[in-house]
Amino acid sequence: MTGAGTPTFGDRLNDAFGRFGRLSVGIDPHPYLLSAWGLSDDAAGLREFGLRVVEASAGQAGIVKPQVAFFERHGSRGYAALEEVIAAARAAGLLVIADAKRGDVGTSVEAYGETWLRPGSPLEADAVTLVAYQGVGSLDAPIRLAREHGKGVFVLAATSNPEGRDIQRAFVDTHAASAAEDSNGTSDGGAPRRVARAIVDDIVASNAAAGETKLGSVGVVIGATLRLAEFQLDFRPSPVLPVLAPGFGHQGAAVSQSADIFGPMSPGVIVAQSRSVLDAGPTGIAAAIKNQAKDVRSNIA
Amino acid sequence: MTGAGTPTFGDRLNDAFGRFGRLSVGIDPHPYLLSAWGLSDDAAGLREFGLRVVEASAGQAGIVKPQVAFFERHGSRGYAALEEVIAAARAAGLLVIADAKRGDVGTSVEAYGETWLRPGSPLEADAVTLVAYQGVGSLDAPIRLAREHGKGVFVLAATSNPEGRDIQRAFVDTHAASAAEDSNGTSDGGAPRRVARAIVDDIVASNAAAGETKLGSVGVVIGATLRLAEFQLDFRPSPVLPVLAPGFGHQGAAVSQSADIFGPMSPGVIVAQSRSVLDAGPTGIAAAIKNQAKDVRSNIA
Repeated sequence: MTGAGTPTFGDRLNDAFGRFGRLSVGIDPHPYLLSAWGLSDDAAGLREFGLRVVEASAGQAGIVKPQVAFFERHGSRGYAALEEVIAAARAAGLLVIADAKRGDVGTSVEAYGETWLRPGSPLEADAVTLVAYQGVGSLDAPIRLAREHGKGVFVLAATSNPEGRDIQRAFVDTHAASAAEDSNGTSDGGAPRRVARAIVDDIVASNAAAGETKLGSVGVVIGATLRLAEFQLDFRPSPVLPVLAPGFGHQGAAVSQSADIFGPMSPGVIVAQSRSVLDAGPTGIAAAIKNQAKDVRSNIA
Repeated sequence: MTGAGTPTFGDRLNDAFGRFGRLSVGIDPHPYLLSAWGLSDDAAGLREFGLRVVEASAGQAGIVKPQVAFFERHGSRGYAALEEVIAAARAAGLLVIADAKRGDVGTSVEAYGETWLRPGSPLEADAVTLVAYQGVGSLDAPIRLAREHGKGVFVLAATSNPEGRDIQRAFVDTHAASAAEDSNGTSDGGAPRRVARAIVDDIVASNAAAGETKLGSVGVVIGATLRLAEFQLDFRPSPVLPVLAPGFGHQGAAVSQSADIFGPMSPGVIVAQSRSVLDAGPTGIAAAIKNQAKDVRSNIA
């Protein structure tokens, strides 16, 4: 709890961890899944799909993560469905992470923050995923808004897809530049940092500066299929960093390997599962979520 | 024109350059602008604002660029307004670049492509801005869809905001790695590339591989307030690369300096103006756009 009595997102996430464990259920109404569920590829299908996943998740998992792209694909009607699905999830006590991967600067990124995090906004969620290609500093407005209202943000750091390696492992040359300017020619600024690590460092610093001591309210996205050392991410952040981790299940990482994969980052890991539960279909989804949540709880304390 | 008779986006853009010049008019209904225009901060205000800018642009400029964040801020109703504004702009013969800065992988990024570029989609535009934090390769699906339907894509390369420098100027270590593996120890792979340059190289290669010879259908976003050499972007791409360039006017770059700023990239520059015309208000907007378009034409051939 903050002094003002509003729980931070980190507090709320920690509470969800304690009650339900680390599972986040994806709400990914891809056309093939709509078809497999016997639903139409339109706003009514999106709505029905989303509400069924919410119903099956309530009381079993603490978190749901709608993939915004599949709703946006149907324009304003798709968004009307998303508004209903998010509202139903929040009413059921689920934390909603809108997987929107938004990013921009100035008043535009501020508008994205207001879209997903401002209380009373039609698309109000509990947290949103953001992209920092324009720098973590470009995300100041939504991060500030999040902290003000007990909301959360997850910034992409290292993603599972192979095409992302070059950029995410690129070397930020701040240290090299300062070393070059150093009169004695030594690199006392430490080794050059990779982009993913530089982003994570900025976010950990933001949580610390906000006075968070337990679980931060701003987290990162790191794929579970990666070797964290290759991104300089094998370290222990303080305060504990929420790590939204896709890549379990369908994409190959085993939940039982979570501690090995994430090492010192393990205390903040959120296991994001989508297809591995959604493939169970409308009749099997409730049991699939229940089993997955149990599996995640038994593997991750 | 492609062999099949569908003009490429590059062809259509080139045609717009020839008829109206390089001006792109921003449709940025920020709350303060809505208020200055005497409009309400709701979907009706967004719609009215957008339609007035479209009306003032038609016949004067070739391109409009709605900033999606300001519409998304009002959820599904905001998107319904955006659908109307985009449709009105396209009906008036304007090319619409949806400034959405979307990015993701797999079926999610494919869904974003379908949202903004698929013919018949509620939000169908002519081009969309995308972000490549997950690699240019992660954007294959929307780029393929764009080429298939004569649509365009603009990928963020180097942006004007100072917070973006570290990531956009970071060094991709592909070359360094291959040099290290080189038995004679020389770095014959050339100098390490910066992230922004690596992204631009990939896009230029994509346009060349698609057989484009004049103006490519996939372009980039580069801020007009930057020194291009600092991002290794002072080179001549072939085919000509569309460069969506914010930063003129309100942000400080002079249109008369465009050739100095963009050097060998000048032939593809699109001058993105927003506040400098929108600040003219509902009574002054038509004259402001007319004057800006004229100024851009007289300065950029």
